[in-house]
Amino acid sequence: MWKNRFKPYDILSGEEVEVIHEQAMTILEEIGVDFLHERARAVFQKAGMPIEENRVRLDRAMVLEMAAKAPSTFDLQARNPSRSVTLGGNNVVTAPVYGPPFITDLERGRRGATIEDFNNFDKMAQAIDQIHCAGGTTVEPEDLPLGTRHLDMLYSHIRWTDKPFMGSVISADNARDTIEMASIVFGGREKIEKTPGVMSLINVNSPLRYDDRMLGALLEYTEVGQPVIVTPFLMAGAMSPMGLAGSIAQQTAEALAGIALVQLMRPGTPTVYGSFLTNTDMQSGSPAFGTPESAMGIFASAQMARHYKVPFRGGGALTSSKGPDAQAAYESMMCMWPTILGGVHFVLHAAGWLESALLASYEKFIIDVEALRMFEWMLQKGLPVDDEGMAMDALREVGPGGHFLGSEHTLRNYRTGFYRPWISSTENYDRWNRMGAKTADVVAADRWKKVLAEYPDPGIDAGIDEQLREFIAKRRLEIGND
Amino acid sequence: MWKNRFKPYDILSGEEVEVIHEQAMTILEEIGVDFLHERARAVFQKAGMPIEENRVRLDRAMVLEMAAKAPSTFDLQARNPSRSVTLGGNNVVTAPVYGPPFITDLERGRRGATIEDFNNFDKMAQAIDQIHCAGGTTVEPEDLPLGTRHLDMLYSHIRWTDKPFMGSVISADNARDTIEMASIVFGGREKIEKTPGVMSLINVNSPLRYDDRMLGALLEYTEVGQPVIVTPFLMAGAMSPMGLAGSIAQQTAEALAGIALVQLMRPGTPTVYGSFLTNTDMQSGSPAFGTPESAMGIFASAQMARHYKVPFRGGGALTSSKGPDAQAAYESMMCMWPTILGGVHFVLHAAGWLESALLASYEKFIIDVEALRMFEWMLQKGLPVDDEGMAMDALREVGPGGHFLGSEHTLRNYRTGFYRPWISSTENYDRWNRMGAKTADVVAADRWKKVLAEYPDPGIDAGIDEQLREFIAKRRLEIGND
Repeated sequence: MWKNRFKPYDILSGEEVEVIHEQAMTILEEIGVDFLHERARAVFQKAGMPIEENRVRLDRAMVLEMAAKAPSTFDLQARNPSRSVTLGGNNVVTAPVYGPPFITDLERGRRGATIEDFNNFDKMAQAIDQIHCAGGTTVEPEDLPLGTRHLDMLYSHIRWTDKPFMGSVISADNARDTIEMASIVFGGREKIEKTPGVMSLINVNSPLRYDDRMLGALLEYTEVGQPVIVTPFLMAGAMSPMGLAGSIAQQTAEALAGIALVQLMRPGTPTVYGSFLTNTDMQSGSPAFGTPESAMGIFASAQMARHYKVPFRGGGALTSSKGPDAQAAYESMMCMWPTILGGVHFVLHAAGWLESALLASYEKFIIDVEALRMFEWMLQKGLPVDDEGMAMDALREVGPGGHFLGSEHTLRNYRTGFYRPWISSTENYDRWNRMGAKTADVVAADRWKKVLAEYPDPGIDAGIDEQLREFIAKRRLEIGND
Repeated sequence: MWKNRFKPYDILSGEEVEVIHEQAMTILEEIGVDFLHERARAVFQKAGMPIEENRVRLDRAMVLEMAAKAPSTFDLQARNPSRSVTLGGNNVVTAPVYGPPFITDLERGRRGATIEDFNNFDKMAQAIDQIHCAGGTTVEPEDLPLGTRHLDMLYSHIRWTDKPFMGSVISADNARDTIEMASIVFGGREKIEKTPGVMSLINVNSPLRYDDRMLGALLEYTEVGQPVIVTPFLMAGAMSPMGLAGSIAQQTAEALAGIALVQLMRPGTPTVYGSFLTNTDMQSGSPAFGTPESAMGIFASAQMARHYKVPFRGGGALTSSKGPDAQAAYESMMCMWPTILGGVHFVLHAAGWLESALLASYEKFIIDVEALRMFEWMLQKGLPVDDEGMAMDALREVGPGGHFLGSEHTLRNYRTGFYRPWISSTENYDRWNRMGAKTADVVAADRWKKVLAEYPDPGIDAGIDEQLREFIAKRRLEIGND
């Protein structure tokens, strides 16, 4: 977890925030939102909201009252308490890519992801300080049966990392399994009800629709006070309009609808305003990541979440590129700067994403971490305007035409004074050429192998491990392998 | 030229600006600056500044009085008046890389640059709207004699582009040649004295030293009111201290010293506070570009220039990478975001830079332009919060569970509503693979060849062309070819 020393950059005027807010309220009241789950509709009915079939029209007074009950910051436990995190405030928490069915590396190329890849991503997440949360479905382990895959993924997060992790959202059953395993890890359900032990990603089936499976999971997590990130899924031009401001109004309506549902059920349960917003490339019809629209969308969406004083998830190292090339890097940085300066609290997809979320990459993971390390340096060190930062002694010592390499001040500071690159090459051409003329993807390939080879196993309490294994074995029998 | 709709991001508090200002003044008064040119020292002597040998100690009252005489905005002519630019205010003006002796492209590899490469960079600068100024020594044409090379470079800028260009700063003689050629282009010396016709880059031989050649050029340009960008050349840890804030104080002192010299000579002459500030990688001893220090340095330096209300040059697409790979892209973007959000007015090195300024690249030029196109889109289009941007009609038309691709609003906007990529791939994997699985550098290689093939020659007035050729022929004879 980082403290973000930079004040958030407001891209919208106060008046523009009001216009977007006003439209979000109009959408909720006039158009409404479909909730494809009876229990969810019952919650709204009890709150007096008008309902026709699946459609709920949400009164703005209720929505704002409920949004105000959502805590502006909350803690999420890790089994290593020193790795527990706080969401909200001026904190930044990072997690790897989420969702890709495919994986690639320079040697083996693009292929279906497996549980071995999943384990490896957990091991990299554990080994690398700039990743604060192990994440959720970092890659889809396509070699495992669909019905029980979530158990293996959760076990991997818990066993190979001691960082916070994310839950399964495929169904209510999966959510219950997640809660059960988190309870085992943290010493019982009361413990995680007191301080959350698992956070989950609830996507909205945009526009303006929550499906039954996601709602099933949301309801389970809410009952035991485990935080959900309510995330409208917007490719503007397809799931939202070709107006960026209007898309953010829709997103705000959708996020607040989910947050209101949680707060109506269990006031004070942690909820996060999530954003997964980019535009469609209208020429190819495909989603485009790392675009000007996504950059401005991150700034504006984070600003809207601040308006409601709820923690915000958005941004990440997003790209449409098919490999860890220059496009992957510039598109990722188009999103990462707004992520950091916009004041995003939870950064899913901070490392490893390629090909519009279809592809995870070992090399891209490492390349993204180099960028994370640079942002971390800025956030932690900043630009200190103090005696050591001002270095007046060095200026007096060296004077016109001199050289600072040998000055007292430099000798005091040279180990820690400036950022030290992890994979970036600063060496001269001849030396670089002699060492193999390695481009960044090749350097990254060397590096992830080294990270995995040196992976520091955090171990696990034998009793907890046994309980987890027993639970998983029992559930495997109950579910059956399809 | 772009209008920057984003308000500049202030990384320093007002108090911190004062601390840095105070130290800059102390450096000028107590340590002083070496000016290795008698005429420059005479100017300061006349102003009552104490001088010992080459060392001038500059009184803060004088410096601030002179800085206040520098215009906060000024115009720079192009021979096509629609391409003239304004420096300062909320304008952003871009120019290509400046200085590399080597050039590379994917086919031919790294080699000494030639005048053909120089012409090609001018043709790309002309063809591409996101490059506003043809620049100066985009690459060093190593195949031409050193003594007359500047004439060929100036002719190339003038002939192959109709955009503003930069002058030679190698010596007073070269500056006079530049002024002569600019006078031919713009219809006489009075014309460029009224509205500047050439802008030049005066580097400080940091720390705190102006050498005789650069001062010779500065004096020539100042006499006829042509703007100079006074640019301290700081690799912190070598030419400035290992404290970033102290480096910015030194840079401020150095820049203001040069600006004061110009204003003492010819009050009101346009001057630019320039910054070329990064850190040394203390492990390799090499300069490192696109680092956290350079990113924060751009923000803070731009803020200091705003404090003195003078136009600012800084940032660019800087990198230490040896090829157009992911490192080149993420390091460039580490600098380009602060360049745009920091409110930089003149962005030298906006396209084509590799290998810590030793290497220009055709492919990197194109890759950088894709990033410039994205920033241009943000600056020009922004995030309009108006009826069309809010798209309430589309939201009403589509409703929950629908799709926006066919909505009225989308049909109205799909051509111009969202950014359209130039070289970025958004296509799906199968199609991308079928089309040759091209990484960004390969796509860029195709693109620069197309740009050159379709280069739109602006032509040139035959009379002006003849005068220029006569002048150059005459000077070639006078100088002689070494």
